[in-house]
Amino acid sequence: MSADAIPHYTSPNMTDLSALAGEVFELHLGGKLSIVPQTPLRDRHDLSLAYTPGVADVCRAIAADESLVDTYTGRANTVAVVSDGTAVLGLGNIGPRAAMPVMEGKALLFKHFADVDAVPLCLDTTDVDALVEMVAALAPTFGGINLEDISAPRCFEVERRLQERLDLPVFHDDQHGTAIVTLASLKNAAVVVGKELERLRVVVSGAGAAGVAVAAILRRAGVADVVVCDSRGVIGPHRDDLPDHKRRIAATTNPRRIEGDLAAALVDADAFVGVSGGQVPESAIARMAGDAMIFALANPDPEVHPDVAARHAAVVATGRSDYPNQINNVLAFPGVFRGALDVGARRITEAMKLAAADAIASCVAEPTAGEIVPSVFDDSVVKAVTEAVAATARREGVARR
Amino acid sequence: MSADAIPHYTSPNMTDLSALAGEVFELHLGGKLSIVPQTPLRDRHDLSLAYTPGVADVCRAIAADESLVDTYTGRANTVAVVSDGTAVLGLGNIGPRAAMPVMEGKALLFKHFADVDAVPLCLDTTDVDALVEMVAALAPTFGGINLEDISAPRCFEVERRLQERLDLPVFHDDQHGTAIVTLASLKNAAVVVGKELERLRVVVSGAGAAGVAVAAILRRAGVADVVVCDSRGVIGPHRDDLPDHKRRIAATTNPRRIEGDLAAALVDADAFVGVSGGQVPESAIARMAGDAMIFALANPDPEVHPDVAARHAAVVATGRSDYPNQINNVLAFPGVFRGALDVGARRITEAMKLAAADAIASCVAEPTAGEIVPSVFDDSVVKAVTEAVAATARREGVARR
Repeated sequence: MSADAIPHYTSPNMTDLSALAGEVFELHLGGKLSIVPQTPLRDRHDLSLAYTPGVADVCRAIAADESLVDTYTGRANTVAVVSDGTAVLGLGNIGPRAAMPVMEGKALLFKHFADVDAVPLCLDTTDVDALVEMVAALAPTFGGINLEDISAPRCFEVERRLQERLDLPVFHDDQHGTAIVTLASLKNAAVVVGKELERLRVVVSGAGAAGVAVAAILRRAGVADVVVCDSRGVIGPHRDDLPDHKRRIAATTNPRRIEGDLAAALVDADAFVGVSGGQVPESAIARMAGDAMIFALANPDPEVHPDVAARHAAVVATGRSDYPNQINNVLAFPGVFRGALDVGARRITEAMKLAAADAIASCVAEPTAGEIVPSVFDDSVVKAVTEAVAATARREGVARR
Repeated sequence: MSADAIPHYTSPNMTDLSALAGEVFELHLGGKLSIVPQTPLRDRHDLSLAYTPGVADVCRAIAADESLVDTYTGRANTVAVVSDGTAVLGLGNIGPRAAMPVMEGKALLFKHFADVDAVPLCLDTTDVDALVEMVAALAPTFGGINLEDISAPRCFEVERRLQERLDLPVFHDDQHGTAIVTLASLKNAAVVVGKELERLRVVVSGAGAAGVAVAAILRRAGVADVVVCDSRGVIGPHRDDLPDHKRRIAATTNPRRIEGDLAAALVDADAFVGVSGGQVPESAIARMAGDAMIFALANPDPEVHPDVAARHAAVVATGRSDYPNQINNVLAFPGVFRGALDVGARRITEAMKLAAADAIASCVAEPTAGEIVPSVFDDSVVKAVTEAVAATARREGVARR
């Protein structure tokens, strides 16, 4: 397959980052968010309603019935976007200050796409106990916790312990947002190439937050043959160097007991899901099965350039907004939280994640190689995800209303 | 002096709380704040600027020079309004959820009066170490910390330890906001009654956050005779039951070595500043000096009803918005933070607080018994306070810019 055959991969919108730079910095001056009053303050009467003495009545009412905090404050619609800056985009451990623009961006997307009020909180600690204590202490203020860009394996423990303690949705987006949209994309890509989802051989490159979650959701969705690779190669029972979270992967993946490196895993594979940031040589993807699917999701630099990938695959997707088939978490997290908050969900269950993936996939009526996922600007997506997540929460018994 | 002689104390705006209640609860439905994008998200181009891939450039720039977080995010204009809900208004320890409406109200005032973005954060812990660790960890996200409604004596240690650790303004408003506005009011009230500030005998009822700070700022402003009372009576060297913060009060106040109760302290006192919430009998205020000044600041219920106070005092002030002479922190904190943030102040010094008080007092050109403080809706106040605080910060060498 030549590059000429796939004009849609050389998008006219393809972004020259250096040309963007000036515009990017100008747009970021002073930040991307504003916190604005929802009630007028014209005179003493307004002040006596919104502040003292009137506010005391509302305080007393909540003191008498704590659940009223969700009625008379913004809590039920407010999500904390929490990061420690240890795994930001593909940039790595750049610290909580440098993570701020991403968290502000996330908050902007929350509001724009789902009318969720989101507060960026970048924390100056990387200690798991401290992160858990701090975020748990925020429960009176927030209706949900979106964990973001926290490095593996700490992110697994932080999320698990927080969800055990808190009666509200705790959602590590790098894991589950990525997993949901990847599953949605793979479903539609499989339709495009005429393969059955359950029978696909899928290789996931990366055993960090996203890789673990992608492998898990694919297994739950019925994909029998999932192989996960880390920087040392294929993960399986043959490896004696595995930390806990990778041992759990080894227990549920790699049914053919492959040993070796990523290139060995890719031989005859139907789908490649890159969430590692490491570059993959063209020679390796050249040995995939016919009508292969390549999802090179590292941001901002995909594991395989989409033009190169297109020489060997029938369907190519990336995480970037300037190429077609953008596998972007923004297709998932706004609707997932909107649905969860709408019904006062106590957590995001596995079934709610699967329902979100189905909803996203269903927003593309007739998937093609150039459109396996809906556009992030397709209004129907957040609506579909919201409804699916809310309905599933009710069915699962985790909805408060 | 009869009640008839002081028509301005029976204000036509006087608020019937029960009549307000319905309106108050309606106004609070869904909360009082919204977090809104400052940048458009119309298409993929916008998305690639505000989020990936463009945002990565901003992250890299901040990673290379952390001070740029104040240029390319909202941090430099964003304040955390932090409470643990242990001393909310005059309601006491009602918990972090019931404190939320007050913190939202505070954030609303920050934005309305000073264009400061403020985030309510009500924390589910009352442990001093935990509060200090949590708030300190928020430094990458916020340009200032407004502590609020944290009970004494924990509030003193929380503020002191945070300010020692953080290179940004940490300001416990119940202490310093109250102190600044009280000093401003007393200056103008002294002018009204023709007494000299330095020679006043001032009795402060309450040795919690506000009482400690009021006594301290009055002493720094030159008032020689300040007497502080707690629920057991006058604080002085004769007391052997004093915790640290009250022993510090004993060392710098009560020059006439008064012993006894509040009533004893009030004999011949020129000014009463109530920040205790406890009720004061009319018989006690009846024994104050001629042309007395009574500031009954407890909220929502003043220590002395203003109509009763007016029978015995030339100047009466409360903390309520529905009476004249409202001694309200909102006269201070918006301008204090606006000025501090404008120059990137590393802390709020004592001189900055005194300058803020002078600025507030100066906004009333000709003080009268009915107007010792400017209206909270007087636009000149925040401007005057901002300029005074910023100029003083520069003079004190705590300004970054």
